[in-house]
Amino acid sequence: MTLEVVDEDLNLAIEDMEDLARGAAFLGTGGGGDPYIGRLVTQEAFRAYGPARILPPSKIADDALICSVAGFGAPTVQLEKLTSSEEVEFGFRRLEAYLGRKVDAILPAEIGGSNSMLPLMLGARVGLPVIDADGMGRAFPELQMNSLCVHGVRATPLVVIDEHMNFAVVEANTDRIAEEMTRALAIQMGLRVFISGFVMTGRQMKEAAILGTLTVALGIGRAIAKGRRDGDPVTSLVDYLRTTDYYRHAKVLFDGKIVDLERNTAGGFSVGVCRLQSLSGDKAAAEVTFQNENLVVRVNGETCAIVPDLICIVDRETAEPIPTQNLKYGQRVKVIGMSAPAKMRTPKALETFGPQAFKLPEPFQPIESI
Amino acid sequence: MTLEVVDEDLNLAIEDMEDLARGAAFLGTGGGGDPYIGRLVTQEAFRAYGPARILPPSKIADDALICSVAGFGAPTVQLEKLTSSEEVEFGFRRLEAYLGRKVDAILPAEIGGSNSMLPLMLGARVGLPVIDADGMGRAFPELQMNSLCVHGVRATPLVVIDEHMNFAVVEANTDRIAEEMTRALAIQMGLRVFISGFVMTGRQMKEAAILGTLTVALGIGRAIAKGRRDGDPVTSLVDYLRTTDYYRHAKVLFDGKIVDLERNTAGGFSVGVCRLQSLSGDKAAAEVTFQNENLVVRVNGETCAIVPDLICIVDRETAEPIPTQNLKYGQRVKVIGMSAPAKMRTPKALETFGPQAFKLPEPFQPIESI
Repeated sequence: MTLEVVDEDLNLAIEDMEDLARGAAFLGTGGGGDPYIGRLVTQEAFRAYGPARILPPSKIADDALICSVAGFGAPTVQLEKLTSSEEVEFGFRRLEAYLGRKVDAILPAEIGGSNSMLPLMLGARVGLPVIDADGMGRAFPELQMNSLCVHGVRATPLVVIDEHMNFAVVEANTDRIAEEMTRALAIQMGLRVFISGFVMTGRQMKEAAILGTLTVALGIGRAIAKGRRDGDPVTSLVDYLRTTDYYRHAKVLFDGKIVDLERNTAGGFSVGVCRLQSLSGDKAAAEVTFQNENLVVRVNGETCAIVPDLICIVDRETAEPIPTQNLKYGQRVKVIGMSAPAKMRTPKALETFGPQAFKLPEPFQPIESI
Repeated sequence: MTLEVVDEDLNLAIEDMEDLARGAAFLGTGGGGDPYIGRLVTQEAFRAYGPARILPPSKIADDALICSVAGFGAPTVQLEKLTSSEEVEFGFRRLEAYLGRKVDAILPAEIGGSNSMLPLMLGARVGLPVIDADGMGRAFPELQMNSLCVHGVRATPLVVIDEHMNFAVVEANTDRIAEEMTRALAIQMGLRVFISGFVMTGRQMKEAAILGTLTVALGIGRAIAKGRRDGDPVTSLVDYLRTTDYYRHAKVLFDGKIVDLERNTAGGFSVGVCRLQSLSGDKAAAEVTFQNENLVVRVNGETCAIVPDLICIVDRETAEPIPTQNLKYGQRVKVIGMSAPAKMRTPKALETFGPQAFKLPEPFQPIESI
């Protein structure tokens, strides 16, 4: 299956939302928000307004006006401050007012447990189509870290809004400065805010976005569900990933339990290190470093996968994806690594969100060549 | 002279700017920006575009649209990052664009060495009149601390812009939240930014602003100049203040030298304590606490003047006002206290910028009753 050729509408029933949210949480590589909360809010919107229409990128006109909406902050905080639909719509409307134009379609900024759901909620609520694609085919912690910005789409003008409808419109000369301004505001506003921005045309979206990722997320969720019925969800999941174009270099990198966990909310992020030990008594040890999302996994000191390739921690029995804010001492987990889409591995992409952008010491190495 | 009846245009020549800037710096009570930099930038604008037209409040139509512009941040930082005129105009134009309306006149947000000058620079540059009035008849460190907000004018929508033209439009439910959001942005943007906001009508301005304060600032500057020619500038200054309506309860509270100075840039402000000792050998000691502006002066432990009444530190020989960022160990100074305008002493005003708003322990006492 080559994902770029998806050209059918993705018709989602309310019952599909659990699979989609779980698959999206897996692709969120530890970040991208909580799938449970995101799903509840979206299911409620689907019940109230009817399901959002999900269109393949090929059905979006080149001159359509598109923007993204997302939660922004630290996932540790989202657990305590729930999402409301009103502020997401209000922020989106403020962006339209600022542009002086109506938006035609919504693109998920990233694939993650909650950030794949919010656009669907908003699409249902305001009656706009959501595009089966996203800005990175995974989740990343900073505003400029996505394929859209690498391809020249600007994050700003960007509306940032809190749960009391306080908001700001940010305009910056670079997306990196936009990230710094938005982060400063987000910290002041309680670290659980929503953004509307990344204004682009349909043509820009087709060139810059990672296409078909809602379909893949649903496929991942379904593969996990099937595996649970058949008795081996992790194998079912990895087998499915290998049939996809983007994520086909997929493997289980470590099988063990969490023996140490450092996690802080610092600088507006959830940052930390999760240390694991093998269950088989061979003394193998692994550590996963994260900043909202998992950045690098090292087994016995050797790097096995590194950003922008994807590193996902799942429950070893159920393949449930575990976001960084839910990691706990003693959990028995498998660490799965997989290739990032080609658009996410170009030299310019690596400059923006490769290992050095996170101050990691080692260079990028594609997972398939490690 | 009762200032509220000023109804003549204030015709300023370039040569008047030094007196005006010095008088405004005096009313800035330690804050409000550096008079030297503000004056240079404004004189340059007057030379390039002709002097700004300064109108008495009575000449402003009730339905005129008015806004304020000001520097925002910590004065200690302004010393290192100079003011440019372009970003002030650019921020002002962004506010107009956001409002979708043209502004008719500019009101100084506060009287201070630089913040009385910037509106004149902008007025000259964009050809708009500047109103002979301001938001507080002094300077204050926080956005909501002014007579405008006390009378229901909203600080937001407010544009905050840095020297690289990065900007944000802030919209908040309260002016206190607007202060917090703007401060967070200002810190991120380098603590030397400019704001455009406080959108109001001519009618609101006449009710809420402190009227005639540019005229008083010029009078103060001229009194100091005259005193320098006659040999006793501090007496000349205090004598002049006593002829004004707002500041007529004026007195020299302490005469001594600075023997200790704590000053930090913290939380986005210049905060500290300046300790003084009498020169006469009577061991009298005073301390002035400041947050950008001087907040309270205590002599031998007794409170002698406290916000919102004005506390100004001047050179004891020349009566040159010394802003908090220029205080130095060993300076010989006089501390002058004076009454705030009546609009600044109402119960609602005291709630917003009385001693308790600055977490000072003592209640407000008018200087004339101490």
